[in-house]
Amino acid sequence: MEIFYTSDIAGGILNLGEEESQHCIKVLRHRAGDEISVIDGEGTLFRCRIISDSAKGASAEILESFPDWGGHPYRLEMAVCPTKNMDRYEWFAEKACEIGLDSIVPVIGEHSERKVLKPQRLEKILLSATKQSLKGRIPQLKEAVSVKEYIGSLRDVPDRMKLIAYCFEDDSHPKISIRQALADMPEKCQGISVLIGPEGDFSAEEAALAMECGFIPVHLGPSRLRTETAALTSVFAVYSHFVL
Amino acid sequence: MEIFYTSDIAGGILNLGEEESQHCIKVLRHRAGDEISVIDGEGTLFRCRIISDSAKGASAEILESFPDWGGHPYRLEMAVCPTKNMDRYEWFAEKACEIGLDSIVPVIGEHSERKVLKPQRLEKILLSATKQSLKGRIPQLKEAVSVKEYIGSLRDVPDRMKLIAYCFEDDSHPKISIRQALADMPEKCQGISVLIGPEGDFSAEEAALAMECGFIPVHLGPSRLRTETAALTSVFAVYSHFVL
Repeated sequence: MEIFYTSDIAGGILNLGEEESQHCIKVLRHRAGDEISVIDGEGTLFRCRIISDSAKGASAEILESFPDWGGHPYRLEMAVCPTKNMDRYEWFAEKACEIGLDSIVPVIGEHSERKVLKPQRLEKILLSATKQSLKGRIPQLKEAVSVKEYIGSLRDVPDRMKLIAYCFEDDSHPKISIRQALADMPEKCQGISVLIGPEGDFSAEEAALAMECGFIPVHLGPSRLRTETAALTSVFAVYSHFVL
Repeated sequence: MEIFYTSDIAGGILNLGEEESQHCIKVLRHRAGDEISVIDGEGTLFRCRIISDSAKGASAEILESFPDWGGHPYRLEMAVCPTKNMDRYEWFAEKACEIGLDSIVPVIGEHSERKVLKPQRLEKILLSATKQSLKGRIPQLKEAVSVKEYIGSLRDVPDRMKLIAYCFEDDSHPKISIRQALADMPEKCQGISVLIGPEGDFSAEEAALAMECGFIPVHLGPSRLRTETAALTSVFAVYSHFVL
């Protein structure tokens, strides 16, 4: 099933951008009258009929709408420190999108080697993974912030389940698994945020601030996982809790 | 923590092969008398002292042994059809090793586009993922067989939990999630085998044979997952069931 994307939708008509038009008209040779499937990236799939088959800018009339198409029954934000090797972060973004999440926040930790991140490639990856996995909503790639800024931004968000993958050396905090934490999730929680540190882990200050702001420290089991694998394991744990 | 690997171990002495010796002596500049950590790939980590620091073939005396080092409390074999793009299969092998599994069997389905697979690169990836994730046992990469051969080989293995990620169109078989299937696992089961099909899915004949040989059809949730993501999701599910 070939899916196209556009955000240019009004009055029952949608217009494909140049890249999507090229692909639809030049590559796949669709013509006026053909039916195509288009997502708005906000969660809706439209069944449409092409009314103008210009390869520069095709347009189509909407025949039928499917809201929350390919959606998931949870709200998940992954705040993940960029990996030294960007391929690994891009891989995480693609796989997390396939499994299902709502937003990714690149967070820069005090021990992060990589302090900057170009969003363009990640956005392309998220769009194609969204189409490929037949979802209507493209996960939001938020602007990069420091770990402390991110933690602080959730300080006064009481209806969020806030998890941090961190194990304190001492026994000052109970070590529960992410699966257990999800099983214990309070009714009131409308969403889940999981914070994953860099290769060098969080600083003691970052971890302390997280506790202060209501984050629950969780472990991901005995295996020693790379940053991107730890992040995907967390996405899987949430997916498993809600849909498996 | 730097880990070396050798299978050449006898009488309390171990010899590193040329590549490992190069890395240990030339690159990391270890010298006679230095302590190093070496795995045998069978599950044991050795703390050793270098007695010969030749970059062509270093040797060391064993000071201490740690059996089942970085092991996991389950036995998992993943039988996964090779993906068209080998990068995706290699990525699966690396991540599955990090999380923890015992063996990978490349299986060729009737709908597989890729019918052959070179093991050398996969073996290198499994070795480095094993070292990187601090495990003593290298997952075994078995020889490629057809899906039907693989299914048949498990026909008379009663103490194995046999799962196939396949959803029958009709309701001839109950659709349970892999998580539910694991929760229902009989006491007698000593190990788990999960069979993951190619991009074109299993043929009806392959699926029917699997049922006949005692495979349980399971689903991996509502998301449409690529072959390698479905395979890793299954590894996650087993890991989660036993250690989270």
